[in-house]
Amino acid sequence: MAVGLKPPADLRAVAGARLAAIAAGIKKSGKPDLALIELSANTRVAAVFTQNAFCAAPVTVARQYLAVGAPRALLINSGNANAGTGEAGMAAAQQSCATVALALGCPQQAVLPFSTGVIGAPLRVDKIEAATPGLIESLQADNWLAAAEAIMTTDTLPKAASRSLAIDGKQFTLTGIAKGAGMIRPDMATMLAFIGTDANISQAALSACLDRAVSASFNCITVDGDTSTNDACLLFATGQAGNGEIGIDGPGYGEFYAALESLCVELAQAIVRDGEGATRFVTVQVKGAGDGSEAKRVAYRVAESPLVKTALFAGDPNWGRILAAVGNSGLEGLDIAKVDIALDDLPIIQAGAPAAEYSETAGQAKMAQAELTITVSLGRGDAGATVWTCDLSYDYVRINAEYRS
Amino acid sequence: MAVGLKPPADLRAVAGARLAAIAAGIKKSGKPDLALIELSANTRVAAVFTQNAFCAAPVTVARQYLAVGAPRALLINSGNANAGTGEAGMAAAQQSCATVALALGCPQQAVLPFSTGVIGAPLRVDKIEAATPGLIESLQADNWLAAAEAIMTTDTLPKAASRSLAIDGKQFTLTGIAKGAGMIRPDMATMLAFIGTDANISQAALSACLDRAVSASFNCITVDGDTSTNDACLLFATGQAGNGEIGIDGPGYGEFYAALESLCVELAQAIVRDGEGATRFVTVQVKGAGDGSEAKRVAYRVAESPLVKTALFAGDPNWGRILAAVGNSGLEGLDIAKVDIALDDLPIIQAGAPAAEYSETAGQAKMAQAELTITVSLGRGDAGATVWTCDLSYDYVRINAEYRS
Repeated sequence: MAVGLKPPADLRAVAGARLAAIAAGIKKSGKPDLALIELSANTRVAAVFTQNAFCAAPVTVARQYLAVGAPRALLINSGNANAGTGEAGMAAAQQSCATVALALGCPQQAVLPFSTGVIGAPLRVDKIEAATPGLIESLQADNWLAAAEAIMTTDTLPKAASRSLAIDGKQFTLTGIAKGAGMIRPDMATMLAFIGTDANISQAALSACLDRAVSASFNCITVDGDTSTNDACLLFATGQAGNGEIGIDGPGYGEFYAALESLCVELAQAIVRDGEGATRFVTVQVKGAGDGSEAKRVAYRVAESPLVKTALFAGDPNWGRILAAVGNSGLEGLDIAKVDIALDDLPIIQAGAPAAEYSETAGQAKMAQAELTITVSLGRGDAGATVWTCDLSYDYVRINAEYRS
Repeated sequence: MAVGLKPPADLRAVAGARLAAIAAGIKKSGKPDLALIELSANTRVAAVFTQNAFCAAPVTVARQYLAVGAPRALLINSGNANAGTGEAGMAAAQQSCATVALALGCPQQAVLPFSTGVIGAPLRVDKIEAATPGLIESLQADNWLAAAEAIMTTDTLPKAASRSLAIDGKQFTLTGIAKGAGMIRPDMATMLAFIGTDANISQAALSACLDRAVSASFNCITVDGDTSTNDACLLFATGQAGNGEIGIDGPGYGEFYAALESLCVELAQAIVRDGEGATRFVTVQVKGAGDGSEAKRVAYRVAESPLVKTALFAGDPNWGRILAAVGNSGLEGLDIAKVDIALDDLPIIQAGAPAAEYSETAGQAKMAQAELTITVSLGRGDAGATVWTCDLSYDYVRINAEYRS
């Protein structure tokens, strides 16, 4: 059950990008599992990848190919992560790219591979080869939703959104797709997300915008604290809007960044709203920290505590678990007499002790909501952090106990 | 369901210690919830406490009273943690000690308080006062099992064990009790555990033995990664065995330490075997680490991954999740080409790639066992670490969603 998440609407095509999706038979369910995004010549691409030391074969290959430059297509399969697959996995990723490159008439290194799904099973390249002609035939500019559906694994809804903006009278579009829904705790990277724009923007500005937007969105979410082997977030700019090139901090840069960040936050929150088994969407906000790193440490400690998450599932205002998680975050010299904790606008702890106006009834009313903010004020400085998370339910256990069966 | 854990048997009395347990009405269930351990004069005591910054009132009071010295009694209640209770909680802990001290005829500071249960609810001192006469009347040397039962919360079985040893022809006894079963990830401390011996041992030797034994036992377990506000482990020595005093590294020290460590490991493993919702008991062994701290980091990362834990619950050899957890542990410069992973004696990853002899059938047979060892070799050095944990089941979620209702 996704929390406050609706099927995507009003997706806008990005001039210079065509998409296709197909059921190649990689997923046992027979649902669509292969997507292709074709990029026009001279499209610029920026990307960030997982920091997991056991990164998947497609991550290694995509990094190598990106270094060569001039990408013309993104090939994404779901149902198989092609991770933990050794040399055979590398060969499978390369062969998939070669197949699509041959059909599109571009160099093999111009096709970037991405995979998501079960770790450790061989990727069936023969199925990708068989599906390639049909995939290429169905390329269309308005296929963003179909692509969003084809990259889903345990997601219950596709995740996609668009932004439009005007800079100096020119119209721009930003459209992105993403998928979750478990092994979610991006670390300097993200889950699979693909964002396109028709803006003409320099390579340096594109990369700078992506890094900053990912820090403020995908790197602020957690479902279960497990960082995937396959995380990747890619931003491409076709330049077909015909504007003068946007440079770092030059005209239009601020507006472009703001639209990109807003889009990334919406997609990142959509991943949490559709987190495995999620019944609540929770914002953990930490204020008054000595620096951003300790703020994030406390926020993640609260957001990832199984006891806090099961209390959220139960709708039980068992705030002692929040307090214990803050106390556990390992901050040197934390003075609990300066700590305040609130559920939305309801104080539960003030100056380290139970708040006078707190009542169990008021706490229950807050916890009964599908969306909730937990605010922790540390009284140590001016830094803060926000992390978005969901609860831990029976369905999380069911989904992950049954995932491969 | 506890994994491979039986009710305690063959508990031996410790000369100089008498125990009692009673139902004081602190637990809603009406089960025993108050225990008292009376110590003979000149008993020496060593203790370690939680590192959680939000430590409970009884932890603060016990630390203060211990500094004064000469403890004569340990007063332990279950059903209420007296944590997150501010000044009123401090007063409740002190008043409880005063009540028992008056009845025993000793100073208030000679009674050390311990609490475990729900965080944030006021402790009903009136109930402890009313129960005190009956508690003191029932003090007996052979009441260790009754005390173990009275300190239980979500534990399904009491945890207690004894060791006997002879040094230079003298007989010694060590008996201990402990309780779990959630909010378990001791950090330089432990959950509630009380261990007594009749040995005559110096204060310095007693403290040194306890610190080392806790590092090798209670500090190597995790159920859910949440460190409690109330953890405490206390070791007392009545000296009534009549031996010449054991000093650090002197005669008998090694034998005494070995018996103590063995007892602590049994009690610590009992906490994991009876972890909330546990259906499997898992040993995570890390070898070939650069130092002990990185070995422990990898071991905890695997042991606390919700995805590894749900796969263990399902009995699914989804080893990609183990690999992903190792890759996530954040070790600088981890070379995956040197990493081996095995389930018991079955290699799954060798030199960073799938092991040739691995088969899904063999993996399933290993995962079907109630007890399992996951071994990770990092190929970076000679250090190692062992962590004991359990799986993450529906019952963990149920127990923690329903805990206060």
